[in-house]
Amino acid sequence: MISTLRLLVLNFPGQSEPFRITERNVLEALDRSPRGSLPLTVDVRLADDPNLAEAIAVADAILGPDFPRADIKARGKQLKLVQTTAAGIDHLLPLDWLPPAAAFATANGVHEGAKLTEWAMMVFLMLHTQMPHFITAQREHRWSRRLSASVKGKTALIYGTGAVGRSIAAGAERLGIERIGVRRSAGSVAGFSRILTMDEAHAFLPQADFVVLATPLTPETHNMMNRDVFTRMSPGAHFANFGRGRLVDQQALVEALESGHLGGAIVDVTTPEPPDPDSPFWDAPRLVITPHLSSDDPASHVPRVLDILIENLYRVIGGEPLKNSLQR
Amino acid sequence: MISTLRLLVLNFPGQSEPFRITERNVLEALDRSPRGSLPLTVDVRLADDPNLAEAIAVADAILGPDFPRADIKARGKQLKLVQTTAAGIDHLLPLDWLPPAAAFATANGVHEGAKLTEWAMMVFLMLHTQMPHFITAQREHRWSRRLSASVKGKTALIYGTGAVGRSIAAGAERLGIERIGVRRSAGSVAGFSRILTMDEAHAFLPQADFVVLATPLTPETHNMMNRDVFTRMSPGAHFANFGRGRLVDQQALVEALESGHLGGAIVDVTTPEPPDPDSPFWDAPRLVITPHLSSDDPASHVPRVLDILIENLYRVIGGEPLKNSLQR
Repeated sequence: MISTLRLLVLNFPGQSEPFRITERNVLEALDRSPRGSLPLTVDVRLADDPNLAEAIAVADAILGPDFPRADIKARGKQLKLVQTTAAGIDHLLPLDWLPPAAAFATANGVHEGAKLTEWAMMVFLMLHTQMPHFITAQREHRWSRRLSASVKGKTALIYGTGAVGRSIAAGAERLGIERIGVRRSAGSVAGFSRILTMDEAHAFLPQADFVVLATPLTPETHNMMNRDVFTRMSPGAHFANFGRGRLVDQQALVEALESGHLGGAIVDVTTPEPPDPDSPFWDAPRLVITPHLSSDDPASHVPRVLDILIENLYRVIGGEPLKNSLQR
Repeated sequence: MISTLRLLVLNFPGQSEPFRITERNVLEALDRSPRGSLPLTVDVRLADDPNLAEAIAVADAILGPDFPRADIKARGKQLKLVQTTAAGIDHLLPLDWLPPAAAFATANGVHEGAKLTEWAMMVFLMLHTQMPHFITAQREHRWSRRLSASVKGKTALIYGTGAVGRSIAAGAERLGIERIGVRRSAGSVAGFSRILTMDEAHAFLPQADFVVLATPLTPETHNMMNRDVFTRMSPGAHFANFGRGRLVDQQALVEALESGHLGGAIVDVTTPEPPDPDSPFWDAPRLVITPHLSSDDPASHVPRVLDILIENLYRVIGGEPLKNSLQR
């Protein structure tokens, strides 16, 4: 029986304001929980707090978008839960810094929903209507018409069928776009017209009007969009990246745009972020870059993250398997 | 009783290919008509045909996006119908070149439908997510985040409740955006949450998240979006123009963007088209220009125009009131 849980919340100095978490946010999440009361103290700190190591030493659980790994490894003996506010955790791997007693959980699923679905609809419509072409033409003071009919009936090949991929598929569905999901194993996933394995997807590439990435960055997916894949895409087909910059060989993407092979591309993620000031990425033709926020909903992010955290605190106490737990 | 109707179809040298009308297109439209057979000969010509005046002299009806007014006035004695392929006819006014016996009809309604509704959804989503800001930032090699939640519940003030305005409202409705329509007279229009008169709309301006133009260009609407109107809009509110460039005081629009007052603007029409190569319009911050095609659906435009034409040919023969007829 745990008397009182000590929760340490980490905010980061450069973090956007709506994503900073306050004690009040945590207490509101506790009130929302159907589980009843939980003895909890909340310690909210900035990651550059000089006394952070001491705070870690007495914490039972820690929540943040990133973590001071050396301090946690050295001082986090009491930690039972390390909960990230992020869905993608490539920046935290390998998890060799976790204390032996600490479980680790992600905020997977927190991005699913209206905001990302709307963003996906916008991306499909912008690509289909040739908006990247018009934007490039405007930059060059050129008026260059390219006509398009309705997007209905076009086909999107969506790599990744997790929370992000499902929200993108929901956007495609609202526009009448066929949704082919790609994942490691065959089967079916709600919201997708069909599921293909990676090999099957490679064969399907020439039939896709849109190729969309929503898959985690792993050693297997690193540079998965390379020269060969872009070449297999149909001339005039479109590309969007909702995942991670390193999924893409950026030089190959720039070449596929410069040659005129790709119709257009919209990427919410780059390598690095932001691109270097003199990177050719900024000026590549028919390439639209947004600053990694397609799935960030300032209205729902913090409550959703905290609902996962509070649920996991109950599960830690009850010895139940965690939500979104990840084996190290 | 008319023996055989002679239809003259005018195509223009600079016209986009999907909008060129062939004899076959006309005969297919005749086949689609529920009205039965119609004795018709079809003469398809380019507007720079040296023998055009002779063709006009023997035509019963003429179809085109624009017309050789002097020739029609001088030689079109036999014309019973002048049918435009356009919905907006500001470029044809005043109609003092029409022969006395010729009725005049527009292609009003031809733009209503899926293509324009999808374009409107894209415009609302691009404005709401700050895409014009990201596009300007990319041009300057800057990574500048601005977060947005779902667009649901925002309010659009849509000037014009005709075919174009209704298609835009349908797009707004699919995104859960409130649709306030503006027209000369009070009342209600299907697809709009409310209807305001011009004066009421002026009072409502500070409450609108989006101000959208879809109204014809007339002496009353010329420069209707001026410094006063932009100033009344809420800081950060957005603007879109689906109508005509001359509805807008472009200098006032550029100033409202440069001052930071307007969140962003997307205009499908400019004055002139294209803007002059050194126009400040090309480089204004958070302004996206598309080359006058938001409502042009290459898949449906020609069949829809011809369905109106064929129906009007039957009505000319039968002495019935024309569809989309306009009094001179």
